[in-house]
Amino acid sequence: MTSSLRTGVRPRTGVRPTMKDVAAAAGVGLKTVSRVVNGESGVRDGTAERVREAIEALGFRRNDSARLLRTGRTASVALVLEDISDPFSSALSRAVEQVAAAEGCLLFTGSSGERADRERELALAFCARRVDGLIVVPAGDDHRYLLPEIASGTPVVFLDRPAGGIDADAVLSDNAGGARRGTAHLIAHGHRRIGFVGDLRAIHTAAERERGYRAAMAEAGLPVDDRWVDCGPTDRARVGEAVRRLTAGPDAVTALFTANNRVTLAALHHLPAERRPAVVGFDDLELADLLTPGLTVVAQDPAALGALAARRLFARLAGDVGAPACLEVPTTLIPRGSGEIRS
Amino acid sequence: MTSSLRTGVRPRTGVRPTMKDVAAAAGVGLKTVSRVVNGESGVRDGTAERVREAIEALGFRRNDSARLLRTGRTASVALVLEDISDPFSSALSRAVEQVAAAEGCLLFTGSSGERADRERELALAFCARRVDGLIVVPAGDDHRYLLPEIASGTPVVFLDRPAGGIDADAVLSDNAGGARRGTAHLIAHGHRRIGFVGDLRAIHTAAERERGYRAAMAEAGLPVDDRWVDCGPTDRARVGEAVRRLTAGPDAVTALFTANNRVTLAALHHLPAERRPAVVGFDDLELADLLTPGLTVVAQDPAALGALAARRLFARLAGDVGAPACLEVPTTLIPRGSGEIRS
Repeated sequence: MTSSLRTGVRPRTGVRPTMKDVAAAAGVGLKTVSRVVNGESGVRDGTAERVREAIEALGFRRNDSARLLRTGRTASVALVLEDISDPFSSALSRAVEQVAAAEGCLLFTGSSGERADRERELALAFCARRVDGLIVVPAGDDHRYLLPEIASGTPVVFLDRPAGGIDADAVLSDNAGGARRGTAHLIAHGHRRIGFVGDLRAIHTAAERERGYRAAMAEAGLPVDDRWVDCGPTDRARVGEAVRRLTAGPDAVTALFTANNRVTLAALHHLPAERRPAVVGFDDLELADLLTPGLTVVAQDPAALGALAARRLFARLAGDVGAPACLEVPTTLIPRGSGEIRS
Repeated sequence: MTSSLRTGVRPRTGVRPTMKDVAAAAGVGLKTVSRVVNGESGVRDGTAERVREAIEALGFRRNDSARLLRTGRTASVALVLEDISDPFSSALSRAVEQVAAAEGCLLFTGSSGERADRERELALAFCARRVDGLIVVPAGDDHRYLLPEIASGTPVVFLDRPAGGIDADAVLSDNAGGARRGTAHLIAHGHRRIGFVGDLRAIHTAAERERGYRAAMAEAGLPVDDRWVDCGPTDRARVGEAVRRLTAGPDAVTALFTANNRVTLAALHHLPAERRPAVVGFDDLELADLLTPGLTVVAQDPAALGALAARRLFARLAGDVGAPACLEVPTTLIPRGSGEIRS
């Protein structure tokens, strides 16, 4: 790979220059090189200059991994997500990265794909690399496997969903409150028959949003027909089938609450052209305001969620030993048209 | 943080159990523990079982960082992106992650925010951690700073944009070809006055797409008025101003080629309601098919780009010493309505 470097440099492939090479090239002792590399005092200006020239000429770089290993810190944190390519996950990641960067830390990321075994595998692999701290968007519901890591001093903060089986810091959206407000918005526009299309019930956020929907219906004294509630995987086939079933026939619902970004996206592709139901979605989408009608959503704030989780993690690393807390980030109802269609 | 663990375990905070602790608990020698931990033979079943029980009871975990440091590999690779929260970047990241995971490698990610100094800082920080390999989406145009890393055996693959000043592997979209096809599509629908709204010209992909646009116009024998070409930052204010200028007055263009996802998004918010121009965008958007009219795009394949770059990196790690190559991934024109509006 280095055979055709355009610059004419002919470095020794595969061999990193050592401090010894620098010492030899600069005609000084190893200790002097070490002092210059680590910014310690006690080296004369002219000598330090010679050492720096040798470092530059040889392309010497300090091995941070080895150095950090000796300090007991790796200046890295890790984030286990559901899927980095999902816009919600990637916004979380960016926010965590920004806080980590301000703390001089690099970030590992890994996607669990909503699989508990992969979450565990990734989390433990990051811990085995001795990351200083870990943020986990849980796929599973039993996090006792992290107890030895927490016990030995690696703080763990859970994000988007709480930990299972252990008492740990968590940063969550106000899922139930947001769904309640979104459903109440539909009720306020005259709807009585409102369908709920959600994610798998085993997922904490999905269950919380269903709870919010049911709370709003109960507060308005409206019964919920069990056939109006459809929970399951978020693929287009299943969501499409749910939407078709809910919006057809004499018993059709007049409004839909779609409980996450993928459900909403799939549902929008399967709305009936006639007697179009009102729709409020949980999670904002990038072109939501350009649709006809605009898409009314209950927006989460992934940047705030990620930043809060990262700040919590660094507070723990800085020595905060207070009891684990669950921090909640508010959601925002954004009316744009689809949720204001009257029944 | 561990004071209120619900499980009743009272681990020693901040102290990781060592192999010595495991040996003492199991009543065996250190070498025996080491054999079990590293999966070596020569330990009787009953003894191995006792060691595994002690490992479980104490929560002992092998320190992969130290172990890997001795092998000279860290089983980690790093990806420097423009912005992990951008859908194109996050799709690249997911693809790289999947290839890395199949190779047993963890992934570091970092966002340069389109700043050359930050790209350099991140890339060198990852190298100082001795990542096994590096994938860079360049923000800057001079990558000679990576020569010492490449020389000492860390392969680097450039993604989305080529390296500057060094000869290195690169995986790119067919930017010029895609823009040419998109522009030719507008010409085929009767347009003669076609505006081009692009990113900063200093960015390789932006310059390539402008080249493709100009090539299509030249092939059709159409002159390009310099006022039709507007390049600059992708924020809404600047793109909005460009769209308003291009689509107003007697000299208005009848079609727009918007040269990346952020430009397209901003442009869609500023299209005139009357005499709506045809639009073809470079990059697909999640709700593009649900707009009215649907958005015609030249779609990139970020999953293929990321996977190809990662496979190239692992081929280098596996010993491929062939000359650096530039690999190109094709783009796809997806007609959905906005690009088929006739002049």
